[in-house]
This record gives sequence, C-alpha cells and structure tokens, in this order.
Amino acid sequence: MPEPKPNLYPAFNIVRLSHVEFVVKDLAASKAFYVDTLGLQVTHEDGERVCLRAMEERGHHCIVLKKGAEPVANVLGFKVYQEEELDKAKTWFEGKGLKTSWVERPHQGRTLRTTDHQGIPLEFYFQMERLPRIHQKYALYRGVKPLRIDHFNMFSTNVDRSVEFYNEMGFRLTEYTEDAQTGKMWAAWMHRKGGVHDVAFTNGRGPRLHHTAFWVPTPLNIIDLLDLMSTTGYLANIERGPGRHGISNAFFLYIRDPDGHRIEIYCSDYQTVDPDHEPIKWDLKDPQRQTLWGAPAPKSWFEEGTTFPGVAVTEPELKAQPIVAP
Amino acid sequence: MPEPKPNLYPAFNIVRLSHVEFVVKDLAASKAFYVDTLGLQVTHEDGERVCLRAMEERGHHCIVLKKGAEPVANVLGFKVYQEEELDKAKTWFEGKGLKTSWVERPHQGRTLRTTDHQGIPLEFYFQMERLPRIHQKYALYRGVKPLRIDHFNMFSTNVDRSVEFYNEMGFRLTEYTEDAQTGKMWAAWMHRKGGVHDVAFTNGRGPRLHHTAFWVPTPLNIIDLLDLMSTTGYLANIERGPGRHGISNAFFLYIRDPDGHRIEIYCSDYQTVDPDHEPIKWDLKDPQRQTLWGAPAPKSWFEEGTTFPGVAVTEPELKAQPIVAP
Amino acid sequence: MPEPKPNLYPAFNIVRLSHVEFVVKDLAASKAFYVDTLGLQVTHEDGERVCLRAMEERGHHCIVLKKGAEPVANVLGFKVYQEEELDKAKTWFEGKGLKTSWVERPHQGRTLRTTDHQGIPLEFYFQMERLPRIHQKYALYRGVKPLRIDHFNMFSTNVDRSVEFYNEMGFRLTEYTEDAQTGKMWAAWMHRKGGVHDVAFTNGRGPRLHHTAFWVPTPLNIIDLLDLMSTTGYLANIERGPGRHGISNAFFLYIRDPDGHRIEIYCSDYQTVDPDHEPIKWDLKDPQRQTLWGAPAPKSWFEEGTTFPGVAVTEPELKAQPIVAP
Amino acid sequence: MPEPKPNLYPAFNIVRLSHVEFVVKDLAASKAFYVDTLGLQVTHEDGERVCLRAMEERGHHCIVLKKGAEPVANVLGFKVYQEEELDKAKTWFEGKGLKTSWVERPHQGRTLRTTDHQGIPLEFYFQMERLPRIHQKYALYRGVKPLRIDHFNMFSTNVDRSVEFYNEMGFRLTEYTEDAQTGKMWAAWMHRKGGVHDVAFTNGRGPRLHHTAFWVPTPLNIIDLLDLMSTTGYLANIERGPGRHGISNAFFLYIRDPDGHRIEIYCSDYQTVDPDHEPIKWDLKDPQRQTLWGAPAPKSWFEEGTTFPGVAVTEPELKAQPIVAP
Repeated sequence: MPEPKPNLYPAFNIVRLSHVEFVVKDLAASKAFYVDTLGLQVTHEDGERVCLRAMEERGHHCIVLKKGAEPVANVLGFKVYQEEELDKAKTWFEGKGLKTSWVERPHQGRTLRTTDHQGIPLEFYFQMERLPRIHQKYALYRGVKPLRIDHFNMFSTNVDRSVEFYNEMGFRLTEYTEDAQTGKMWAAWMHRKGGVHDVAFTNGRGPRLHHTAFWVPTPLNIIDLLDLMSTTGYLANIERGPGRHGISNAFFLYIRDPDGHRIEIYCSDYQTVDPDHEPIKWDLKDPQRQTLWGAPAPKSWFEEGTTFPGVAVTEPELKAQPIVAP
Repeated sequence: MPEPKPNLYPAFNIVRLSHVEFVVKDLAASKAFYVDTLGLQVTHEDGERVCLRAMEERGHHCIVLKKGAEPVANVLGFKVYQEEELDKAKTWFEGKGLKTSWVERPHQGRTLRTTDHQGIPLEFYFQMERLPRIHQKYALYRGVKPLRIDHFNMFSTNVDRSVEFYNEMGFRLTEYTEDAQTGKMWAAWMHRKGGVHDVAFTNGRGPRLHHTAFWVPTPLNIIDLLDLMSTTGYLANIERGPGRHGISNAFFLYIRDPDGHRIEIYCSDYQTVDPDHEPIKWDLKDPQRQTLWGAPAPKSWFEEGTTFPGVAVTEPELKAQPIVAP
Repeated sequence: MPEPKPNLYPAFNIVRLSHVEFVVKDLAASKAFYVDTLGLQVTHEDGERVCLRAMEERGHHCIVLKKGAEPVANVLGFKVYQEEELDKAKTWFEGKGLKTSWVERPHQGRTLRTTDHQGIPLEFYFQMERLPRIHQKYALYRGVKPLRIDHFNMFSTNVDRSVEFYNEMGFRLTEYTEDAQTGKMWAAWMHRKGGVHDVAFTNGRGPRLHHTAFWVPTPLNIIDLLDLMSTTGYLANIERGPGRHGISNAFFLYIRDPDGHRIEIYCSDYQTVDPDHEPIKWDLKDPQRQTLWGAPAPKSWFEEGTTFPGVAVTEPELKAQPIVAP
Repeated sequence: MPEPKPNLYPAFNIVRLSHVEFVVKDLAASKAFYVDTLGLQVTHEDGERVCLRAMEERGHHCIVLKKGAEPVANVLGFKVYQEEELDKAKTWFEGKGLKTSWVERPHQGRTLRTTDHQGIPLEFYFQMERLPRIHQKYALYRGVKPLRIDHFNMFSTNVDRSVEFYNEMGFRLTEYTEDAQTGKMWAAWMHRKGGVHDVAFTNGRGPRLHHTAFWVPTPLNIIDLLDLMSTTGYLANIERGPGRHGISNAFFLYIRDPDGHRIEIYCSDYQTVDPDHEPIKWDLKDPQRQTLWGAPAPKSWFEEGTTFPGVAVTEPELKAQPIVAP
C-alpha cells in the first residue's frame, strides 16, 4: 500500500492526545506507582477516582484512575482546537456509521464520545479545567520527573486501515514499518502536535492499548527511575529497556503498573511540524528499528496489552514474526 | 495594555521560523565557529555563501552565511503551510501598506519578500529542498550537537505594537514581561510551532536582531560546548550563561560568532500547543524572570544586536532600567 | 619558592579528610538546608547536635551541626590509617611545639586534638561508628544527591608555609597558583585520598575556613539543586556558579548555609594516586584557573569565610589583587 | 571461607593497575575501534605496536596493541610506589616459588616480570614516561570520552585462592559473591587505588582475562557510544548493557574489540579508601548483584574470555549455575 498523503485540511481539528482512563483494582497501590514512584501529581481524589497530571501540564488530568474489577482502558481522550470542532467531529464520525453521544465529564467542557473503526472508545473535548502552573515548583518534582503525556500506542488487526482512518482525522504519518512480502504496514506512528506521534499502531491481536507514554527531560531521569524501581519493590514491573528506538530515535523504558497497564517513559524524539515532513520507512526485517542498539524486546512486550471494555479482541489479518528475545 | 487574545484563525498559516541569512566578513572564520565548534552541517558552499543545517533538520538551510563587509542580518525566513498561504500573505502585508515582492532563492520554491511594521526583512516560502536525514548518523555529531533552529529574538522600539502585529500573523503569546508603572510590555515571547517561541521581542533600540537560538538535547551538551570554546580560542565569545531562564524555563547559553552575531544554545522549554494556553506574566522588577538562579546578564547582552541592512535604528518608546550586572 | 617534593614516607598516615563541626544558630533552619535541600541524611539528633552523612558514606558523620551563638567551625576532622598513627601524630605535633590532647568524641574511637601552625583546630581518629549502607537505597536520595565529603578549603596568611606544613603531614600538592612577581604561592591544592584535594589553601585573611565540599554524581545534579534552591527561598544562598574550575577541572557550585558557612558542590575532578603525579602550576594572572569559562567570582567569595573559635585572624603576608567581578 | 582481613602492611606497595598488552590481528581495525570509536589517544605508533592513553592519564600507555596471530593478552601491568618496591616484590614472588625476571619495556623504567599463582603474566614498574596533560584539551575528546583505565576482571578456577593471593599483595576486598551451598566465593572485587576494584575474579575456566574497564564521566557518554557504535558498523560488538551493576553500583556497558577482547565502559562506583571499609557480601542466587535492574547477561558474557600466551586453561573447581538470559 502506498503511504497516505498528509491530510492538510482534515474535517475537524484535533490539537493533541489528552488523557486515558484506566480501571485499576486498588487505588492505593496505583497511587504508590503513579504518584510516589513516577512522580505524577494528584489533582483530584475521592474513593472511586484519582486524577493525575504531569509537571508542565495545565489541564486537569492526563490519567484518570478508576476503581474497578477489570483492568481495562475506559477511554482515550483528545483535545480539539475550538468548540465548533466537536460538532464537525460528530458529523464526521456519524458519516462513518459510528455512534456518537454527548457525555458529562468532570473538569471538562462539552465532550463527544464515539469510537474508531475498530471500536476503541474515544472522547473529544475543547475545554478542560486549567490549573495553576507547577512547572517551576521544583520542590514537587519526584521520581522520573514526568513532564507531559506524549502518546498512545494501540494494537491494530489491520494497521493500513487504522492509518487510513486516523489520517482522515488529520493525524500525519511520521514513520512506519512495512512487511516487504505483502507490502502492508506492520506498524505506524502518526502525530498532531508536532512530535513523532500522538497515536501509533502495531499489528497484533486488537484492538488493545499497547502503552501510554510520558515525556521526561533526559535519559538520566530514566536511569534514576530504574534505580528507584529496582530498590523499592518494583523490579518485576520493569519490562523493557533502557534503550533507543530506531523508530522515533527516542530513548525509552517500558514499565507495567500494578494492574499490568504498560507505561513508556520517553525522551529525545524530533520535531515534525513541517507538513511536507517525509515519513520514514523501516523494513520489518531490520531489528534496529525496534532497538537501535540491538537488544531484543521480551515476549510479553509483543503479546500483552490492555483491552477496552466490551470490545472484542480478534486476531490480526497480517501474520508475520516479530523479532523476540530468544 | 490587555494581553492579546490568541488569533485562532489568522489570515495565513505560518508553520515555523525557518532560517536567517547573516553577512560575515570571513567565511573561513565563520565556518570554524558554526561548523567545527557548534557542529552545524554544511549543505552548500561556494566562495560567497555557506548554507548550514542542524542534525534533525531535513530542509536545506537554517543559516546562510554570506560574505560581505557589514555584519548585518539580511533576512529572517519562515515556512508556510501550503503554497496558497503565500498569496494570502501577500494580500495581508499589502493591506498593511507594506511592500512585497516575489524573489528567487536557491533551494527554495516560490518566496515572498516583505517587512514587518518595524522594517525587519521577512521572507516566506512553502517549499525548501529536502535532504537525506542525518539524525541517526551519529558519527557526524560534533560540538554542541545542535538539533534544530528554535527561535529569533528581536529588539523592538514598542513591544506592544510588535505583539499586536505578529499576533495578527497567528503567533500566540506564551510569556511576557510587563512594566508595572506604565502597564506596557517590556518583552514578549510568541510561538507558531508549539514551544515557547518562534519569535520574541525585547524593548530596546530597534529594530535589531538580538539572537538566533538552537535547540540541543540536554544541558550537558551546553557544558561540553563551554569546555570546548574556552580551550580553543573562543573564550571571549562566551557572553552569558550557562543558566536557566525564569521565562521559558529553558537552560541557556549565549555566545557571539566572529562577527558579533549572537547565538543562543537552548534546551528544556515546554509544550504550548493548547490554543487556550495561558500566557505567563512576569514583573519587570523580578530578576528571576531573566535568570531563575539569580546571576545577572552582562551589559553587552542588553545593548548589542545585529542590524538589518538599510533599516534605521531608533530609541525605544519605553524607558526603563533593565537589571544589569553591577 | 620551589614546589615541595612529595613526602613519600610521612611521619603518620592520614587516610582522608573526614568531617567538620559547624556552630549554627538555629538547628531547624540548618536541617532545612542540609537535609531537605542538599539531601544529607541525619544519623544522630538531639536538641544540641545534629550529625549528618552523605549517601555513600559508612562513617557516622561528615558534618556535625552544633547549636550556638557564633557561627564558627569548631574543628576539621581527619581519619588515620591505624590506631598507632594517632601516637605518631601526637609526637609529630608536639615536636612542632603544638599542643595536643586526647578528647572524647561521640561515635568515634580514641581522638587526638591539636592545631596546625596557623591555629586551625584539627582532630584525628582511626575509628568511627560504621553504619548500614544506604548507597543503593534510592528512595532516600534527595536534593543534590550528595555522595561524600570531598575537601576543605582554608584561607592562609602564608600559603607557602601552609603547604610546607601539610606536605610534612603527607598531603601531596596537585595544583597551585603562583604570583609570578614574588615567586610565592597564591593558592594550593593537596590530597591524601587520590583526588585533587583533601585540603586547599588560598591567600587571604586567616586562618579561616573558606568552604567544605561535597561530591555529587554529575553536573545535572547541580543544575537540579539550583532549580530547587531558587524556587524554595534559597535564591540569596546561591553565591557562585555553576561553572568549571580551570584548577581541578571540576564542575562547581558555591552556596551559603543559613549561618553563612560556605558549601561547594563539586564533581568531575581527576585521579592523582601516582606518587610522581606532577603538580600543575597556574599563573595568578590567568583568570581561567578560577573559571575555565571566564565568568568572574563575586567579591563575597574572595572575602568571606568562617572563623575558628578563639583563633585570631590576621592579614595575609602576600598582597595581590584577585580577579573579581567588576 | 571467612573473608580475608585487610592486609594493612603488605610486602610491597602497589599504587594501581596500569596497562594491558593485547595481541591483535589487524592494527588498523583495532585503531578504528580504540581510537576513532572509543576515543583513546595514540601516544606511540609503528608497524608492530600502537600505544594508547586515556584523557586524564599522564603515563605513556594504558593499552598496548601488538600485531600478532593469536588474540591473547600478553601481560597485565601495575605501577608500584617507589623503585625499592620492585626489589621487595621480586623477593615476595620468589618466596612463593614463582619465576621473576627484569625486562626492558619501552617508555618504562626498571620492570619486573612474573606471574600470579594461576600463571597470569604480571609486570611491575615504578616509572613510566610522563606526557603533557591533555585533560583540558577538549578539542581532543571523542567517542565515549575515556578518562582512565579502571580495572581488570579475570576468570579464576578458584576465587578463594585468588583472593588470598592478591590480598597478600595488598589488594583489599570490597565486594564478593558467595555460593551459599559451599561457602565459597563465586566472585570477588579488590582494590588498591581507592575505588571498588583494580582487579576482580570470577569463577570460570581460567586463567583468562574477562575484561578491561575504562572510566568515563557520566552515563550519557555511554549512551553516546551506543548510538555511535550501532550506526557505524559496530552493532555486533555491543555485548551487554547499558545497565547498573548491583555489585559496585556502577553504570556499565560491555563491548568487544575486533579480536574479541572485552572492554567495559564504566562510571559511578564509590570511594573505598577507609582501611576498615566493610566488604559487601552478595548471594549467588541474587540476580540483582549482576544487574540491579534485572536484565540478564548473554551467554557469551559468562563464557568467553581472552587467554594468556602459553598458559593452560582448566575447568573451575566450583560448579554452579550463573544466571543467563533464557
């Protein structure tokens, strides 16, 4: 499949990814992980929900933790440019035959709920409660010093189709992996906010959320987190890394929260604001696309992910062998 | 003056700042500075001109060095979203009573030349020759490992007026310093590409270019550059820093090229893509806005700048005392 | 004066500098500085004294804070190799006509108290209570992540004489500044433990303690401390830096505690264990010896220091002009 | 076996490890690795030998590359305190029934050649040609910015016996791994110069050299080297890491030179100058002793090493299973 042309005038204007709502079994255990260990800041807390933001974020939440029995991801949230984009979005999703509804969300203005073509629950808002800045309150910095949410990565049963769908929504392709035998995409990275991605798709049993990523200042913050986690009872939660991805050029670490939700800690990607930015094509057979330095990822990283509530998971259409640690 | 509302639907769509053309007296001396010391890459070279790019840039040039007698800045270049933005821009500038012309520029598509209200020469293009990526050719990295051009900072004789003009062009205010006595702006930072700024304005004799900034990976690269410059004959070219700005939260270093053009090395600012991002107001009396850690800037930093060819420099309308090293 | 030959077989064997006792007016204010801000760990605390250690230290204290009215330094402590070195030391000091006594010090074995030729109070011990290691308890790391005490720097009224005295004690010269006009030393750095120094001497009103230094992992920890201090009410306690010393090649920051005692945060010097290591000579007129990158030190840094109780301060014998910020 | 008491007054005084001589098949290929990639500096070069030093070293060589057919390690070199130590050493080795001889070595003073109890060839000298300092010639820094040689690690067929032998020579134990079933040491780290080790021993087929380590300023230099090696044809030479050792607390990377000689890049260990420094005991079953963050080492790392010329390799006396990547 030829790579999609950038969609310069999409039907509605998404600014960036915004937040995810995770169901967790034990709010206290999740707080110990996200707040005491990663260093996210609590912006709301009651017996059922904890809202978190990263250090440079002014919006009320980038993660919502909700107490529950099944560790699913309830929704992926996105911010649009202006209120009128919500109405344009509603029209566009309905034109695709996808259900929409207006929902009430605490700390957010008018919010549109819908799904993508795979059934992934999406919500769009234009306004979220803005909080006082804490970016220069250095006494609050802890853990990995997370600055902002960076991207979502999802398993897709057909990456070409996911790319086509999100491209219509205005996401621009920055890098992709092609299966040379079939000419189909194995994985793809797409952005709105000017970095390598707001959303990415990987071939696999889907739809499922592979990970949610946070941006940190330097690789040394990631080394600090590894030292902290490995000496405070979180050794088994370290899944992959540290390393540098060939794709995105980012320095990375993958960890798992107490319910298994995967978090990537991430820094050092590049700027992609040029509308004529050329997507980079990688060969599925090139192991350096995954880890520039050569170390393979563990099996769990390829196979495990977070499901969405009530959304059936099916096998991917494309069968191919990823490179796994022997 | 009340701060300007963000202009969500500007008359034409600028993507980002792009490049500057500096007149230099000795191309070899300038290459020793920009290429051997800073680590920019040569993309074109003849007896009259040298074109440079930074490590993650795909466009042909972010700096053009042109041999000449007077060390001026010939032009500030900006990239627009699509070719049709050029025509919209022409109409808009002419509506302001400013002269425009179509000019031929090597390695660029159709290019519009004009000036801002102060007479600063501006050029807009939609297409520049794209080069093979060198972002992961780590053997080429040298000096401070510059990744991309980040912003221009200009002396303005009336910062309120400059902000109003650039706001109409779509630049959004992120931070500003107010003179509490007069209610007027002393300095302002405005962006298009999602960081703290593409352009900034400081009260002073103008119009002049205060500095051009480059983004680097971490503060340690800046320390490396200081070590290199201070032991290779460039000690006198170190003007201010290292330090952290209160404004922008960036880690910075200011250096001067062999002709006195000022370059800032810069990392660690924050993401500003939200259209409802709240500008941060600083008081002119607060010295931490300039240097969070308290060290004052030298007199030269407040007073010296690069002129534009044939553009008269006049005194600023607002008189106030900047904080200078005693 | 010709530089002293290394004294390969000194009269007694000092291992390293060990600790300092500071008199402070307000123990709570000092704890906020040393513990909450710098990140030292409390090992003993009562209403009169607080003992502190750094993260990799196993000995009980590197700083003792003692409540009192006058902010003096009560003693500089050193560890000797074996118990019998204490007796050899006693003999040596008495041979110099200096008074000695055996003193009881909590958490220490047999301890010898005496003074150097200038009257600086010195104590030597061979055994100090050893504590469980916390080096890999990463949850305890805070502030600048101090790893260990590194050196003392003292004002001397005659640096040549101080070097001669400490050289006899086995300290080896690593670097020194010479006043070319008189051929006399302006400053000197001397070590026992294999780095650039355990003790240093600077020409000035003396004897006084100029500063006590702590070793940290990387320059980024120093940047973190600057960010923290400048946003938690300690802006005025930042005195000089960050920068790189020409002498020692170390990355440095100088800060003042609530009583004015000066602390240096320090990393990156070099190994000096070779007995034939050549001392490096600097010219008093070379400003890069102080700051490789050129920025001058403030006047307070040259003039202020901590006195020793009951020890008269006199003018230096050598008069020369240090380089001070204009 | 009870851990050895520190030998406070050894028979002769070794200052530190000094250098290794590697036989390599292709001097040009080795120079591309050690000089262009790692950043060591050439101090002598002819058609048969290349001598190298690291950036803060004043001695003539820390590695000697010698052209030859078999990639062996010809000798491990050590510096002693004074010339008379050489004679004391000769007596001591002969007292152990080990052969000694005086050998001529370019750029060194009088040199004693002998072997340890396993047959490992050792040479001791007191004087090596001292070179002008390049520590602050920052234009020469390249690659991983190696500052100094740090330690040798050797396979031993009986670690208890190796520890006993080197302890008599004055090396002090800092950390060790015990096989709880047999009470025997599996591995041991011993120092002279005040860090975690000058020499280390690991149970295995021996005697063989496991690796030679170099000290670098910060973990970021190691990340830079990984980026460089993985994009310049050295991907297969990256063997293990980056990671943090539980033992020594050091940040590490293991790489292989073109002949398979293993080099460790290393930073962040701790100071061990106190003669009463307590050795740290690790359990052979604790995988965090190898990698604090949990990632296992590859099989090659446990099995491969460099032989010494003419020295037979035998099986270790202790059989136990190291932890290997599955």
